[in-house]
Amino acid sequence: MLLECLHHSPRSTWAYAYDSRTIHLRLRTKRDDVETVYALAGDKYDWDAHYKELEMEKIASDHFFDYWEIGIRPEHKRFSYGFRLHAGDETVWMVESGIYHEQPMPPGGYYEFPYIHEVDIFQAPEWAKDAVFYQIMPDRFANGDPSNDPEGTAEWGGQPQTEGFFGGDLKGVLEHLDYLTELGINAIYFTPIFKSPSNHKYDTIDYMEIDPQFGTKEDLKKLVKACHERGIRVVLDAVFNHSGVLFGPFQDVVKNGENSKYKDWFHIHSFPVEVKENRANYDTFGFFGHMPKFNTANPQVKQYLLRVATHWLEEYELDGWRLDVANEIDHMFWREFRQAVKAINPEAYIIGEVWSDSTMWLLGDQFDSVMNYPFSDKALAYFESCYMDGYTFANEISRLLMRYPQQTNEVVFNLLCSHDTPRVLTRLGGDKRRLKQAVVFLLTYIGTPCIFYGDEIGLQGEGDPDCRKCMEWDPERQDTELLDFYKMLIALRKNNPVLRHGRFRFLMAEPGDCRIIYERLDEEKHFTVWINNTEEQSTLSHPMVTNDWKDALTEEAVETQDGIMNIELEPLGYRILYRNIAKK
Amino acid sequence: MLLECLHHSPRSTWAYAYDSRTIHLRLRTKRDDVETVYALAGDKYDWDAHYKELEMEKIASDHFFDYWEIGIRPEHKRFSYGFRLHAGDETVWMVESGIYHEQPMPPGGYYEFPYIHEVDIFQAPEWAKDAVFYQIMPDRFANGDPSNDPEGTAEWGGQPQTEGFFGGDLKGVLEHLDYLTELGINAIYFTPIFKSPSNHKYDTIDYMEIDPQFGTKEDLKKLVKACHERGIRVVLDAVFNHSGVLFGPFQDVVKNGENSKYKDWFHIHSFPVEVKENRANYDTFGFFGHMPKFNTANPQVKQYLLRVATHWLEEYELDGWRLDVANEIDHMFWREFRQAVKAINPEAYIIGEVWSDSTMWLLGDQFDSVMNYPFSDKALAYFESCYMDGYTFANEISRLLMRYPQQTNEVVFNLLCSHDTPRVLTRLGGDKRRLKQAVVFLLTYIGTPCIFYGDEIGLQGEGDPDCRKCMEWDPERQDTELLDFYKMLIALRKNNPVLRHGRFRFLMAEPGDCRIIYERLDEEKHFTVWINNTEEQSTLSHPMVTNDWKDALTEEAVETQDGIMNIELEPLGYRILYRNIAKK
Repeated sequence: MLLECLHHSPRSTWAYAYDSRTIHLRLRTKRDDVETVYALAGDKYDWDAHYKELEMEKIASDHFFDYWEIGIRPEHKRFSYGFRLHAGDETVWMVESGIYHEQPMPPGGYYEFPYIHEVDIFQAPEWAKDAVFYQIMPDRFANGDPSNDPEGTAEWGGQPQTEGFFGGDLKGVLEHLDYLTELGINAIYFTPIFKSPSNHKYDTIDYMEIDPQFGTKEDLKKLVKACHERGIRVVLDAVFNHSGVLFGPFQDVVKNGENSKYKDWFHIHSFPVEVKENRANYDTFGFFGHMPKFNTANPQVKQYLLRVATHWLEEYELDGWRLDVANEIDHMFWREFRQAVKAINPEAYIIGEVWSDSTMWLLGDQFDSVMNYPFSDKALAYFESCYMDGYTFANEISRLLMRYPQQTNEVVFNLLCSHDTPRVLTRLGGDKRRLKQAVVFLLTYIGTPCIFYGDEIGLQGEGDPDCRKCMEWDPERQDTELLDFYKMLIALRKNNPVLRHGRFRFLMAEPGDCRIIYERLDEEKHFTVWINNTEEQSTLSHPMVTNDWKDALTEEAVETQDGIMNIELEPLGYRILYRNIAKK
Repeated sequence: MLLECLHHSPRSTWAYAYDSRTIHLRLRTKRDDVETVYALAGDKYDWDAHYKELEMEKIASDHFFDYWEIGIRPEHKRFSYGFRLHAGDETVWMVESGIYHEQPMPPGGYYEFPYIHEVDIFQAPEWAKDAVFYQIMPDRFANGDPSNDPEGTAEWGGQPQTEGFFGGDLKGVLEHLDYLTELGINAIYFTPIFKSPSNHKYDTIDYMEIDPQFGTKEDLKKLVKACHERGIRVVLDAVFNHSGVLFGPFQDVVKNGENSKYKDWFHIHSFPVEVKENRANYDTFGFFGHMPKFNTANPQVKQYLLRVATHWLEEYELDGWRLDVANEIDHMFWREFRQAVKAINPEAYIIGEVWSDSTMWLLGDQFDSVMNYPFSDKALAYFESCYMDGYTFANEISRLLMRYPQQTNEVVFNLLCSHDTPRVLTRLGGDKRRLKQAVVFLLTYIGTPCIFYGDEIGLQGEGDPDCRKCMEWDPERQDTELLDFYKMLIALRKNNPVLRHGRFRFLMAEPGDCRIIYERLDEEKHFTVWINNTEEQSTLSHPMVTNDWKDALTEEAVETQDGIMNIELEPLGYRILYRNIAKK
């Protein structure tokens, strides 16, 4: 055994309460190096009376490592534990004090899970596990009220530039709820709608006003109500890292300098505030002088922003917040934010914008979820000409899964593109077959999927501003075949809880091979998904114990031959099979 | 390079703000596998303009790994980063997205430290870094007022039993402050003093009353005032995991069952509450029915316990709390506790009782420190007949140092024994030479040392209750030679900031060898400590660049020979050298 590779910590993703009774333990070993692993658990105050040995399951593998997991339900909400590993003749014990070839005397030096506190458990809203999100930039989705169009609004469908408006608004969304209902999504994430001079509105002037170009407070109320009537949840964008330069308190600082009562609302290095040679003498988002960074540790700022968060949530019955540039705001702020938001709506879904490892925000005290850009990076690298082979893709996806606890994986916000990236279809070389494969993966994978408006009708575009084109409403210019495909896949996910809650595992993912098979499994259903990410026709084969499989999209029976399932796929084809599991 | 061994996380002990300007990065590699490591850092919003390559320092090694560290001060409080490692002809880049043999394009996929927020930085009170603590069990230290002795108080100095009293009290401590001042300690940690039926008082009846056997509130006030006049800080013991069975609210539950307004103050499984066959039908500390566990998530309980914490702190000007069974209470409680306590006294020192890995409590939002039992385990295993050789000891100590960020290591509560373990002298076979070596290590090591009352005059004892003997005040029966030794070592630590703040590193620690050399270093002084943990006389040698060393205890000059320092040591001997570093 390569002992250097053994890893466990008595915390974070390695030992966590999954629910009020169950603790999940994970252990890492070198890939293909260890045959069996047991968790050895007992109560530290009465070890022998509560001692258990439980075999762990190998749940994932990546390039270097295998990952083992087990759920344990201790009688007294606590236990001490260690691991025993077997490989050939070698037996190794691993406890907190070290790694041994003889069993160390328990429980001293063993790992501890001191007590399951419900209040410390990471708990995301149940509905988020079942949601399919749709991201809307209000200026670009639909123009329901031309009377509120800003001066110089461009013609709908023109080429987007960094500046300039197309006239989309809340009424436009309201008028297209039938479309969204037919598509099948059940949650919308809106990019910012508060008063701001830009089209994206990430530079807020007034957090208590809807931007007039999008409509009125009444419009928002009406829209949320109509969404709720259709079972669609609504999440808004909270831009709390920075304001716009025209935000009242910042303008007060511009005007009154050191005498402004708002001078400590920002991080100002000297007065008067100014931008010289493209560098501001105050902290900003990136190096954008028109986006002064809030001092979120200032109690007044905190109180103000928390009031913004709770006011809109309460008055407009929102279902959550997406948090812009969330990782650049202090953890203390987010802890108070969670408390305040959940006090108003315990089912509010809090999604942070964090592009990289987000563990520190996902320990239960801050966010429910993050925008899973690492997911899209891996998915695009695989589905775009198999730049990453199936083996590497499976390794990378498994590495992401092992980064977070299970309950996080169930609600992490998976996306293929957004207003901040090129469109997925463009990224996949405009090849609809590749797009379909990626969407199959998105919608049959664990986590909360989000579709960027227009992806479903074939919208293309490079990075910002090209990805922010107007939604296409002319059926002649929509890819309705693609739209039907999205509808079908969303419906499949909706009708099969296993695709949301079931265990995910790769069944086939080999080096140098662009084809993969993976499964989703729960107590009622078993899905297998077959993907031929090559330009040739190909038959994928995998042993199957039972012979009761059907095509999930056509309900056609699919037979095994001598215990092997052989699935012939077109170039860049896919197939989704399922079987019902007999109730015991 | 064994790539499986490379480890870094963009958080926790691997990437943390040391102060408001400095970020510490750490990286782990296989031991003796990598020659040089560079941190590559830039601003993600303008990479090239802020790009830096900085060589990292190998700061520690353990059995499997080397640890590399660097402090970086980014211009804009944020940066993205990766690592470049060299071994022979091999060059490897490590970033968040993976490990590569060619440099991945920055900054996408690199690690991120998004922004240094002062409010998120782990900051312990400065005074704790300079403190030498003395732990007192009030019943066993000194009887200053026989009139408050409980009925049946035993004669001072008798054999302690699990039950029974010896009459020690607060006045007794007050009367011996001269002794403590001469000893040189500057902080006292008292085991509990609130009203309770036991001698240890970990089963509280009333959190708002001093136990009458220890004196009055006036006595506490007088004692704290007298301590402060002598520069001695006072920390009390907060027993918030559980109350005693006689605690009013629990008695109300006993009496009124389900109708008690306190029924949700505890974790009660059924009514009436009872203990049958040694098992309570409510959660307890361990399996002790007379210690019902608090439901610290209940807002009323929280409010009550926080009022206890803040009341005593404020009214009696205490300097902190030691938290009993701290790991079995929820993190949410401790976060609020820290806020409440620091609001009253920002310099309050919060020490959790956690016997194992305590990372989750030491991220800046909960405790300042924990009782470092893993430290005593390692120290005793080495100093007790070299059960652990010098190499293993150095590996284990280094592993502990790498478990926490530097600012935690500076204030972690190091002890050799306590009321819950055998006495250190007994543990070391009664061999005073071994005790002295252990005390040399304790008092020249990084962290906040604590001496258990009586260790300094040679008190012995096995585990509880034997370790809780009465303090010996008869000079004839005190080991005054040992006492003088403690005074000398405490004074040495006090007079030399380098022993509190300086860098710690092993200089010699070889497999199969029981002798070690280590150093402490800052900009003003350089200490080397030489320990011969063998039963034979032995000469320890180490190259020394300068020849300006003195014995730290005698001021005698100690010469090198041809650039080698040779130190001849008695069996189980030690020597402490120092030199002044010329100011540049």
